[in-house]
Amino acid sequence: MTAGPGRSAGGRGRDGDPDRSGAERPSGRGSGGALPRPIRLADKLALFTEHWSPRIVADVNDHQVKLSKFEGEFVWHSHESEDELFLVLKGVLRMRFRAGDVVVGEGEMIVVPRGVEHLPVGEGEVHVMLVEPRGTLNTGDVRDARTVQEPERI
Amino acid sequence: MTAGPGRSAGGRGRDGDPDRSGAERPSGRGSGGALPRPIRLADKLALFTEHWSPRIVADVNDHQVKLSKFEGEFVWHSHESEDELFLVLKGVLRMRFRAGDVVVGEGEMIVVPRGVEHLPVGEGEVHVMLVEPRGTLNTGDVRDARTVQEPERI
Repeated sequence: MTAGPGRSAGGRGRDGDPDRSGAERPSGRGSGGALPRPIRLADKLALFTEHWSPRIVADVNDHQVKLSKFEGEFVWHSHESEDELFLVLKGVLRMRFRAGDVVVGEGEMIVVPRGVEHLPVGEGEVHVMLVEPRGTLNTGDVRDARTVQEPERI
Repeated sequence: MTAGPGRSAGGRGRDGDPDRSGAERPSGRGSGGALPRPIRLADKLALFTEHWSPRIVADVNDHQVKLSKFEGEFVWHSHESEDELFLVLKGVLRMRFRAGDVVVGEGEMIVVPRGVEHLPVGEGEVHVMLVEPRGTLNTGDVRDARTVQEPERI
């Protein structure tokens, strides 16, 4: 799975293109507000290079969609009360559990249930989209140098 | 964005391959249960051809991930209390709002806020991944022939 501009829809839908101008017009709930804007994953991924540093790209109810780049081993952790979904956009994610590994390739996703210890490993660089409740901490029940208390919104 | 097997990770991670055998081993929360299985979007999409008939592929907390295929116009509707996320895996989704259209291409997503009337239009066939609260009805506040009360789980 790729989200590259080259795979986008025939040049349509880019910011500034006539077809997308609707996204700029006022609208929204009933009478006011802006139209929702499309979020291009490849554009968002191009905004950062750091590993293990999730960025928030969308809010859906009390859940958030984050993008992150992984490489190498993260840290064993679990989330007491949150399931976490990982969708691999690029590369190979090896999700280690205490009882075995699960390999998640491009175009695949995995849901890590709450309470289950896991260790994400990027086999090379991996681009991942996460869906999890607002406030979910990347290192779960562990605090270390890679804990991101307040992910940046991009 | 594609989720085709041809883009998967170097032959790894297919059911039955040695690398994925971990997914079959018992594990899970603490002492019991199975390891989470990877969900290959392309494989799931190959299981159905109907348009406007969402399938549930994963649960994440109180939200669900669904796959659907759109073609042509759906029906104007809104969801009173649910935001809906649409990620376009293939094709072009035109999301019509009363105040204008937003074109969502491959590798892009859009969040339709609760309470906002919208009309999804598939410009040709579109493959979409949805994230929305469990129980969200595809036709929202409208009931018609395309309302799916209980989406199939695949």
